[in-house]
Amino acid sequence: MTSEKISLKQIIDGVQPVDRSWVEKAAERTARLVMPPRALGRLHDVSERICGIQQTLIPSIHRKAFLVMAGDHGIVAEGVSAYPQEVTGEMVKTFINGGAGINILAAQVDAEVVVVDMGIKPQLDLQALNAGDRLIVRKVAGGTANFSRGPAMSEREAEAAVLTGFQIATELFEKGIQILGTGDMGIGNTTPSAAIGAVIVGSSLDEMVGRGTGVDDEGLTRKKDAIRRGIETNRPDPGNGLDVLTKVGGFEIGGIAGCILAGAFHRRPVVIDGFISTAGALLAYTLAPDVTDYLFAGHCSEEPGHRVMLNYLGLRPILDLEMRLGEGTGGALAMGIMDGAVQILKNMATFEEAGVSEKQP
Amino acid sequence: MTSEKISLKQIIDGVQPVDRSWVEKAAERTARLVMPPRALGRLHDVSERICGIQQTLIPSIHRKAFLVMAGDHGIVAEGVSAYPQEVTGEMVKTFINGGAGINILAAQVDAEVVVVDMGIKPQLDLQALNAGDRLIVRKVAGGTANFSRGPAMSEREAEAAVLTGFQIATELFEKGIQILGTGDMGIGNTTPSAAIGAVIVGSSLDEMVGRGTGVDDEGLTRKKDAIRRGIETNRPDPGNGLDVLTKVGGFEIGGIAGCILAGAFHRRPVVIDGFISTAGALLAYTLAPDVTDYLFAGHCSEEPGHRVMLNYLGLRPILDLEMRLGEGTGGALAMGIMDGAVQILKNMATFEEAGVSEKQP
Repeated sequence: MTSEKISLKQIIDGVQPVDRSWVEKAAERTARLVMPPRALGRLHDVSERICGIQQTLIPSIHRKAFLVMAGDHGIVAEGVSAYPQEVTGEMVKTFINGGAGINILAAQVDAEVVVVDMGIKPQLDLQALNAGDRLIVRKVAGGTANFSRGPAMSEREAEAAVLTGFQIATELFEKGIQILGTGDMGIGNTTPSAAIGAVIVGSSLDEMVGRGTGVDDEGLTRKKDAIRRGIETNRPDPGNGLDVLTKVGGFEIGGIAGCILAGAFHRRPVVIDGFISTAGALLAYTLAPDVTDYLFAGHCSEEPGHRVMLNYLGLRPILDLEMRLGEGTGGALAMGIMDGAVQILKNMATFEEAGVSEKQP
Repeated sequence: MTSEKISLKQIIDGVQPVDRSWVEKAAERTARLVMPPRALGRLHDVSERICGIQQTLIPSIHRKAFLVMAGDHGIVAEGVSAYPQEVTGEMVKTFINGGAGINILAAQVDAEVVVVDMGIKPQLDLQALNAGDRLIVRKVAGGTANFSRGPAMSEREAEAAVLTGFQIATELFEKGIQILGTGDMGIGNTTPSAAIGAVIVGSSLDEMVGRGTGVDDEGLTRKKDAIRRGIETNRPDPGNGLDVLTKVGGFEIGGIAGCILAGAFHRRPVVIDGFISTAGALLAYTLAPDVTDYLFAGHCSEEPGHRVMLNYLGLRPILDLEMRLGEGTGGALAMGIMDGAVQILKNMATFEEAGVSEKQP
């Protein structure tokens, strides 16, 4: 079955939990490595889970890619962002030209960066951009509707966004990508992300809504008001990520949910970044709760609701560096740590190999 | 003046605070990069401080090395460690053979690993080991004395340990090393480190003493008792690191203090690892408080006193991954993050270069 033909139902049915027996075998190897028991702490949890995902004791995450999903948001009409909407398209060009944060940090870990136009407002001039395979244009529509007044998108568009993310991630996996990072770009997108978080986690707006790229106090009040009206008007079903996406989501957030489903479906680790990627993870989680077995939380963002979302998903962030850029930047830094974890499991000597005495009885 | 001739007094006098004007210039560059203000959080603090240390806006930490300082400890006679003392020498061989944790994680960031025999018990057979320049033998003595009954070493030995660390680090800097990581190996060495911490920070033994490589409850009691007797018997002067080193220290810990002084003296960033490296930093700090301007705390260890030490020094750890191996492993992982920070400062586009709209007024 090609990925173009697969239905959301088939994807959801195909997501299975990680095989614990491989995790346990990997933990047995860790126990033989020449150090006090599990002395590298959370590195062992990372490497052993990757063994479980890949069903091997010689895991590899050498081939890495980031999908930076971009979309525009009708909700910006409510004055929820510190930056003008043009920045979404301008940043897409910056990703293609290699000058953005994710370009720099992905290069550090030898990861490709592919930008996906999931639904930004402008039509980019592809010829002038000379983007090659650094840009994939799969616009669901030219920006969402203002969800404070009605649904952000149609049900059909929501499903298209998720399936598009799934297909694009699947194509990367088929090309040999072993670990995928999710990233985002979309002026205004902490607003739908906070709405998704509040609905699915069931937390208050005070807990979930932050300043995003840096709105002032008045902007923060407008943002909370817009989200409150959006939830009241649309009444999304917290148990159904597709309904939440339809009513208060964004095209790039749906695309990220699709990437996450693809990782779980094809048994590949996926590293989520910050607030927006984790909103995508919440959507995917309502559809197929076992996706969390395949997810690694790259970092904990400064956006205050992020920790609430991660706790709900049972994910512990690898890094906590007060970052709040998005794009996949936290995931890229975390992949360096994950690389180290995998190398330790594979290449560190055992007590026996090193001829080192073990613990005293 | 060659480093062999320099006195401790001259070293201390040569340690100057970082030039804040370069840090401020670097922060001005950060402000122009194409993202919300300081959106990569602590990465900016790291890169800007490196600019201050190197007095440049095009910093480089490309050439990296770890000095793994090894020593043995008479205090093990008190039953303070879960592993036999032979492991110190066995692990030195493992470092030389490339099979230890620090070898794997240093390779990830392209850092050299040099092991220094600062005073382990065995005489290693250098010819059989074929160690090349991966091992430097500069034994102060074949292990310290049991500090629960008297000083761990003589004053002359303490000064020799610090000067040896200074000289070896200086040689690496003269060879072009731009950033140095400190590491340690020494069965029993969380015991002198906790003693150093308790004396200099002035905290209780309950706060400062942990299980090290994994002693049981009885071992932990013996460890606290031995430290208590050591401090009572020797009465180290908390304001004088050389006296603390003499009375309750270790040769490798003195060597680490010397490495840290060398970083500050020669204006090179030094990444400290866990509990033992930070005990070395405490010693150096009492001698020349400005050393902290040049120090980066790689991670926060599981050893409970580590956070207390770091707080005292005013250092925030880059990582917190529940690690407790030592060897420099936490520093090696952190150097990957620091590399990312430096690349962001140097290579990310500015708003102007990228043609991206700035924040709304």
